[in-house]
Amino acid sequence: MTITTKLDTNPDTYAGLRPVQLREDGRALVLLDQRQLPRESVWLELDALEDIAVAIETLTVRGAPAIGCAAAIGLYVVSLGLPETQAEFLAELEAASARLADTRPTAVNLFVALDQLRAAVQEQLRREPEAEVAKLREVLRATALDHVREDLRACLELGAHGAAKLPAGGILTHCNTGALATSGHGTALGVVRSAWALGTKLHVFVDETRPLLQGSRLTAWELVHDGIPCSLICDNMAGAMLARGEIQAAIVGADRIARNGDAANKIGTYTVAVLCKHHGVPFYVAAPWTTIDLSLASGAAIPIEERSPDEVRVHGGALRAPATVPVRNPAFDVTPAELITGIITERGVFEPGQLARAGR
Amino acid sequence: MTITTKLDTNPDTYAGLRPVQLREDGRALVLLDQRQLPRESVWLELDALEDIAVAIETLTVRGAPAIGCAAAIGLYVVSLGLPETQAEFLAELEAASARLADTRPTAVNLFVALDQLRAAVQEQLRREPEAEVAKLREVLRATALDHVREDLRACLELGAHGAAKLPAGGILTHCNTGALATSGHGTALGVVRSAWALGTKLHVFVDETRPLLQGSRLTAWELVHDGIPCSLICDNMAGAMLARGEIQAAIVGADRIARNGDAANKIGTYTVAVLCKHHGVPFYVAAPWTTIDLSLASGAAIPIEERSPDEVRVHGGALRAPATVPVRNPAFDVTPAELITGIITERGVFEPGQLARAGR
Repeated sequence: MTITTKLDTNPDTYAGLRPVQLREDGRALVLLDQRQLPRESVWLELDALEDIAVAIETLTVRGAPAIGCAAAIGLYVVSLGLPETQAEFLAELEAASARLADTRPTAVNLFVALDQLRAAVQEQLRREPEAEVAKLREVLRATALDHVREDLRACLELGAHGAAKLPAGGILTHCNTGALATSGHGTALGVVRSAWALGTKLHVFVDETRPLLQGSRLTAWELVHDGIPCSLICDNMAGAMLARGEIQAAIVGADRIARNGDAANKIGTYTVAVLCKHHGVPFYVAAPWTTIDLSLASGAAIPIEERSPDEVRVHGGALRAPATVPVRNPAFDVTPAELITGIITERGVFEPGQLARAGR
Repeated sequence: MTITTKLDTNPDTYAGLRPVQLREDGRALVLLDQRQLPRESVWLELDALEDIAVAIETLTVRGAPAIGCAAAIGLYVVSLGLPETQAEFLAELEAASARLADTRPTAVNLFVALDQLRAAVQEQLRREPEAEVAKLREVLRATALDHVREDLRACLELGAHGAAKLPAGGILTHCNTGALATSGHGTALGVVRSAWALGTKLHVFVDETRPLLQGSRLTAWELVHDGIPCSLICDNMAGAMLARGEIQAAIVGADRIARNGDAANKIGTYTVAVLCKHHGVPFYVAAPWTTIDLSLASGAAIPIEERSPDEVRVHGGALRAPATVPVRNPAFDVTPAELITGIITERGVFEPGQLARAGR
């Protein structure tokens, strides 16, 4: 584990893109609308429960950590409009929390965030049974902001650990693991940001990431926004860039990492790992420690979601394949531990085989 | 070299899809409009020089062998409207040939086809200096049809050679190498067709082939048309299918093959080859012998065209990346000979290292 001292990992002074925020007056959730990217940057200010829930449901905000942050700030903001008597307040807060929990089924961060807020209220009531609603709102506010701050802190520390490992030169990435997927900075793309801040000379090759194009729509937008040199490529071009010696390392995120170091991530990640192995180029996975599921022995136990065929058949609204052609559309694949050079977390960088011991 | 005797390789009795034809009355070039696929099958009947030239320019017909066939039939059809006096006829024929040669810069088949027709006319004039225009038209007709027949014959023989090698099971292919790229049957996809006709149980995995989607638009359409079982996948999914053991071989075409067996083909082919190597699955290249350029020592000498950034940024007419993000868009990559199991031609199946000797 190497922590560079040159990078500021203090979330309170972070000046980068923050796609999920509490408005300065403390009365609205502010979201960068990801559905409008990269066409335009539209910031939404939401304070009504239903608007916030629908924003999560319709992918205005996406990326598991970002969803958790939006739910935390969202629940606080909604609490401002709830009744002033404690019993009514608590009943309606519970209902609001349930509505937000009902928006997306998979992202564990959503439930973790809401649980944190409810637990903080319970703890306050245990200490002070007659606590005023104003006090409970204060607790919600502090807990929500703390959740966001901790997510950002994990990204910044993970970024610093990773930046110490990342070589100069061409860096290949896949999907979006940036500020837009988190409270800011990002995971794999956070490592790129940290390395760039450290002065590492980089050129990022961005896989467009078919079928949903998170690479071209979101990652490319973030890199252009930050002024980090990059080239957008189709997923099938990474091999040619590696063959030409233009790529010195690859770094990707993970949706779930098993005890043995196998990592599930966006479809196409496995191909990147095989290409890196063939070319003798390091392949890093960057993810917060919460992504590691020590209860899973290996990646074979990770279920892979198969999504709608039309995600593959349709491009930009236009049908580009026979309407009836059968399609395979797995959303994720599993990269075996032996293809992974290192797993970068906020606790440090681990060889895949070290995870089980580190987690004890 | 194994030639199966079960397959009919006679071009005169071929009953499959023929996208480039002479109309039955002999007075028009008939083309399946590839720009309309897979939405609808529109057959165009063209007899005017400018219409035929524009059809080639605008990719109504594409695929090097198919372009050659369209030019050959096209020049004959145009000759029907040229003056009846020999001198005028020859002058205008030359101008028409020059116009057709000017449509696409790269496909060598275009120039080969036009040269064959002009050489045949010259040969007739050598034998019969006063030959009537009607006789010259007859020569053009016979030569054009012969060019098309020979292209189809090469595809059918190549298909038979390859079918004897292709295992049953999942077959991965990339780009379009089918009937639509040739006078019929196809090269790599022709091998698939021949194997299917032979009774080999196949399931074809079709790489969509970004950025121009020849796989989803054309190959998937051909397989659905022929009733051959297939699944369309994004290019980045082939690795996951190989990891699951669903693919038993890959077969692709080639735009140019060097003396040492290195093969240039559609971008993404190299990644398929690396994935096959990693999984111990055979990787075949199928191409007519004319694709082999014995003057080139290796693939390093093959120039790689870099195409417009908007092919990558725009999907189905919609911008899906920042308008200003830099893009890399090489149209081809080179697969080194050591990743190629066999090169399938109408002369037989060769190990890449055998080409130089076989070509002597």
